Amino acid sequence: MRYRAVESTGEYLARLETDADWRSEIEDLAREVDAEAGWFQAVGAVRDADVWYYDQAAAEYRSVTFEEPLEVAACLGNVARLEGDVFAHTHAVLSRESGQALAGHLDAATVLSGEVHLRTFEEPLVREHDEATGLDLWL
Amino acid sequence: MRYRAVESTGEYLARLETDADWRSEIEDLAREVDAEAGWFQAVGAVRDADVWYYDQAAAEYRSVTFEEPLEVAACLGNVARLEGDVFAHTHAVLSRESGQALAGHLDAATVLSGEVHLRTFEEPLVREHDEATGLDLWL
Amino acid sequence: MRYRAVESTGEYLARLETDADWRSEIEDLAREVDAEAGWFQAVGAVRDADVWYYDQAAAEYRSVTFEEPLEVAACLGNVARLEGDVFAHTHAVLSRESGQALAGHLDAATVLSGEVHLRTFEEPLVREHDEATGLDLWL
Repeated sequence: MRYRAVESTGEYLARLETDADWRSEIEDLAREVDAEAGWFQAVGAVRDADVWYYDQAAAEYRSVTFEEPLEVAACLGNVARLEGDVFAHTHAVLSRESGQALAGHLDAATVLSGEVHLRTFEEPLVREHDEATGLDLWL
Repeated sequence: MRYRAVESTGEYLARLETDADWRSEIEDLAREVDAEAGWFQAVGAVRDADVWYYDQAAAEYRSVTFEEPLEVAACLGNVARLEGDVFAHTHAVLSRESGQALAGHLDAATVLSGEVHLRTFEEPLVREHDEATGLDLWL
Repeated sequence: MRYRAVESTGEYLARLETDADWRSEIEDLAREVDAEAGWFQAVGAVRDADVWYYDQAAAEYRSVTFEEPLEVAACLGNVARLEGDVFAHTHAVLSRESGQALAGHLDAATVLSGEVHLRTFEEPLVREHDEATGLDLWL
């Protein structure tokens, strides 16, 4: 495993804007506080979620869209640089009225409400293409 | 998005009491350490979980009860003031023996075991009614 | 509820090794940074996951294995001492291409990629057998 000790530069609580995009809001927060690296957690509610799954054999993402209102039961991820811009790598667990849980890499979703905790780090994280997995990884 | 930089006032690990209520235990922890704002994560096991889903069209919560033993695979949330008292906004992902995941806003559940990390903040968070969503939101 | 204020001794970001075991990698990270206590969060992708569910009536874990590639939508847990060694108590929510979520106590899984945030604490955590639940608990 590769690892790095990090120093925190700040800690933030945010309330995402209703009707905005969930991931874009987190990236805007990172830009607003000048963060090139960070770790976040969030809960809330969304609609119309694009959830990605990585097909490990084909080395390609597959997408499924849930065009419905959903709870965001858990959302975890991190902020890094990707191709010169801020990228919030966002995974989430969503749920339906029945309690059924759906999950994966969250590409996009329309916010009803979102409560976010972001911790930023001094050391930048930069994503680069990794041959072994086909993914853009940091460290 | 609205956000606030926060300063941490403390960090706590807690073990929830067997047979107590999951959310009440987290609120008791916040009271015990005089926290008016905080962010928590938890894992554990419960039984008889009341899981809520927000009906975005009707602006009302719907409830479903799972009267069975469940793992708490992931629990995230935050502590704020609501109507003059401490409120732990608690989302959770639960699971059955088959591995099936259930998730949503966790109103109540009976603790078997619970391991909690709570980080408290100096700046109070106060929930107030938000017209646009029908929810009680902070910031 | 029992609790303890903790002082952080460090904060780390790690990238887990492709083809290694998910939980062993987290335990190796804890050993590498000399942590006897910590809290972690992670996201990533795995295959062949052994997911455990605690049968509360029988006081025994039940295991189910998913021999397939899965997203790690959310992973939370903590590092403590158990029987003289480092143990990473690891819960996770996994997902399939359909978005279906699976969850529980994650005993083992083969890493494709894993991004971990670990926060370590000065005060050691030691797990001991708890008669009431049949589990090994700290505090």
